[in-house]
Amino acid sequence: MKLASFINPETRQKTYGRIDADGIIDLGRRFSDIYADIPAALRAGALKQFEAVQGAPDFRFEQVTFLPVIEQPGKILCVGMNYMEKRIEFQQTVDAPTLFIRFADTLSAHRQPLMKPESSNEFDYEGELAVVIGQHADNVSCEAALDVVAGYSCFMDGSVRDMQYTWFTSGKNWRHTGGFGPWMVTADEIGDPQQLDISTFLNGVRVQHDTTNNMVRSVAELIAYISRFTPLAPGDVIITGSPGGVGKKRTPPLFMKAGDVVEVEISQIGRLVNTVAAERDVLAYA
Amino acid sequence: MKLASFINPETRQKTYGRIDADGIIDLGRRFSDIYADIPAALRAGALKQFEAVQGAPDFRFEQVTFLPVIEQPGKILCVGMNYMEKRIEFQQTVDAPTLFIRFADTLSAHRQPLMKPESSNEFDYEGELAVVIGQHADNVSCEAALDVVAGYSCFMDGSVRDMQYTWFTSGKNWRHTGGFGPWMVTADEIGDPQQLDISTFLNGVRVQHDTTNNMVRSVAELIAYISRFTPLAPGDVIITGSPGGVGKKRTPPLFMKAGDVVEVEISQIGRLVNTVAAERDVLAYA
Repeated sequence: MKLASFINPETRQKTYGRIDADGIIDLGRRFSDIYADIPAALRAGALKQFEAVQGAPDFRFEQVTFLPVIEQPGKILCVGMNYMEKRIEFQQTVDAPTLFIRFADTLSAHRQPLMKPESSNEFDYEGELAVVIGQHADNVSCEAALDVVAGYSCFMDGSVRDMQYTWFTSGKNWRHTGGFGPWMVTADEIGDPQQLDISTFLNGVRVQHDTTNNMVRSVAELIAYISRFTPLAPGDVIITGSPGGVGKKRTPPLFMKAGDVVEVEISQIGRLVNTVAAERDVLAYA
Repeated sequence: MKLASFINPETRQKTYGRIDADGIIDLGRRFSDIYADIPAALRAGALKQFEAVQGAPDFRFEQVTFLPVIEQPGKILCVGMNYMEKRIEFQQTVDAPTLFIRFADTLSAHRQPLMKPESSNEFDYEGELAVVIGQHADNVSCEAALDVVAGYSCFMDGSVRDMQYTWFTSGKNWRHTGGFGPWMVTADEIGDPQQLDISTFLNGVRVQHDTTNNMVRSVAELIAYISRFTPLAPGDVIITGSPGGVGKKRTPPLFMKAGDVVEVEISQIGRLVNTVAAERDVLAYA
């Protein structure tokens, strides 16, 4: 099952729904009194109820404005240097998972703009697999870690390299720089998250391509490591790092500018599409 | 004026109050219908109302259980290497402010335990000045930056050095490792935040001592820098970095263990007291 957050085109209210082959079933219309949003539904274990809904789609895909899959995750933890090729590019030598945090207001959605800061000349792409947590996870073992996953999505970790410096916080926390979508595919449909093909396209040209099998730390290992020090809750998100091929390490460098189209495609999930826009245009629109 | 969050000893409910010389005025009892907590009061600009409350204290200091000054800040941004002596200790060469993020569940309160993780042999102290934001701040200039400050507090940035590695997230995000209190002193009483004396005591021995005048980046510069990339809101917190003298850089190293008492004293603010406790004791108690 695929779940998305979006704006109902008729009421202009935020809602969530099930993505079927021919359109979107509005689950919020049916369940929002009991589950305000996807995290609330995850907390209540409502996925079976969502699967059981019958009927024709309420909306066509083109009708809705997508929201980030989870609009307000309690915690967004991001992993750096988690593909071997990227580690070599950045000459990373530290063995432990390197983690940084994004605030929820950095998120953008499928078909929504990604904001290139006015002051940045190095706005870079990083296509990544996002993991949505579905259950409380406190110090879980590697073996049990995948049981706490609700589903997987695509993520565009837009990176302001010229503000990234040592600890990443400022380069990764500009508003509207983290594309998250188009939807979440529930874990039962994915099976092994280390067997996914992941690509990033900039203006139609493939600029990153790898398999999640080349992650240095697997999804299960990341969940186990993170939940040692911070408890995870339904709706929390782990961004699992980007393959090699980022613009900063190309000769010549390749950065994103307003008007560019950047896409992240992951097998069994789908393709997240974002257009890069100038800071003034995004903030005027937001 | 000094403001604190605490548990009302009679109702066992969370509340907030004004710290007077002889005890605590329970402001929550009078205002919680309109301002649920201190951030709500800051958003509404209610400080003058709080100052105007007359009468004898409702509680003695010993009666109440303190909470973190702000229990659920929307954003907690922490600055690394912001005193010259600390930069020299850690051989820091990057010029830009180095920032990391703490989740709200890492906070502890005055007279509450700080949790030493079971797996850590390097639980270190860092006494710091905390800045509580009082107004929305988006891309503010250095000159206007102090106008968005609601007040100042003490912070014990308990640091798990053996998980700190490169990007600090895991070493700074264990639960109950960030002491925040005892209260916030409003900005009007502090005047210049760069003229404060700051000391850390471990079991009564002074282990850090400096003046905020030795910050590499002033409070105003930090707010201006941070608000360039992420908007700040009332109740958000900036932790401004620690002076030199941390345990990791001593010969021999000096780390905290269960039973230790660690204190942060800042002139014009007060003294934050925490006892270090073992992970199992803190989590059983929490």
